[in-house]
Amino acid sequence: PEGLSFPPFCLLTQPRNPPMKAFQDYYPENVSHCYGCGSNNHHGHQIKTFWEGEETVTRFKPEPFHTSVPGYAYGGLIASLIDCHSTGTAAAAMYRSEGREMGTLPPFRFVTGSLHVDFLKPTPLDATLEIRGRVKEIKGRKVVAETTVMVAGVITARGSVVAVQMPDSFGQA
Amino acid sequence: PEGLSFPPFCLLTQPRNPPMKAFQDYYPENVSHCYGCGSNNHHGHQIKTFWEGEETVTRFKPEPFHTSVPGYAYGGLIASLIDCHSTGTAAAAMYRSEGREMGTLPPFRFVTGSLHVDFLKPTPLDATLEIRGRVKEIKGRKVVAETTVMVAGVITARGSVVAVQMPDSFGQA
Repeated sequence: PEGLSFPPFCLLTQPRNPPMKAFQDYYPENVSHCYGCGSNNHHGHQIKTFWEGEETVTRFKPEPFHTSVPGYAYGGLIASLIDCHSTGTAAAAMYRSEGREMGTLPPFRFVTGSLHVDFLKPTPLDATLEIRGRVKEIKGRKVVAETTVMVAGVITARGSVVAVQMPDSFGQA
Repeated sequence: PEGLSFPPFCLLTQPRNPPMKAFQDYYPENVSHCYGCGSNNHHGHQIKTFWEGEETVTRFKPEPFHTSVPGYAYGGLIASLIDCHSTGTAAAAMYRSEGREMGTLPPFRFVTGSLHVDFLKPTPLDATLEIRGRVKEIKGRKVVAETTVMVAGVITARGSVVAVQMPDSFGQA
């Protein structure tokens, strides 16, 4: 009948599939408390990173108070996003390179060995930041990830992170 | 008389001198909104940096939620502190090199051109972080600052920042 030519309201609003899990949703509990990327840190940024082909992508909307000079995002936020995006990229890339599904055991957990950021131009604050990463190198327990931060297609910052698999002794010494 | 051999209570509790102003307390209004170092950003870190001889020092106590793995500070915080500490160091060093008092006009305002951080070991969270900087080079409008992050005398991270005097056109293009 004519009244059913569009699906009823409840079908339109229900998702067809469960939402795609981000890299961070596979992190083991003890690395899910990070201010930048831990889904258990309710004060933090809780970034969510996904594969798009060979690239990893995080989209993030800063809060109005994440200011440098009024209207622009502060550098520490950009650095934080690049950092956590890159450790996520490292973990996902390691699973991929070993042909394993994310979430399978034992987990790959990465910490940042070094972080470099070039700030190319001011990053607008009232915008969605698109952070895109690529793996430059995987060597033993180390992953080098290269990252760009973009707003509306314009690159405002570039980052490079050396991520290292977290030693079992992390924080013991 | 014997009862006055110590100063009365009100004299003991009144400061002898007004509290020393930090570098950030001299910043012009339009650079006082930064999440890392702006005294007008009530959500932010509001770091305070001072000269100690040839070094610049910021002391900062993280919040319990500034976690990486439980018990340790997340890298984005360390990067933010190094970043804002270094732009402060750059401004103070520029005043010093020109023999000018901080706060005199025109102001020196710096932005970060590049930031590099080497994470040497986990930084304990429940501690006061001591961030110490030195000027490596002043060249034209550019200052290179080298920084260490220490907890209880142990260096946990090293940073290098190229700070550049903010162009008048910042954010215009």
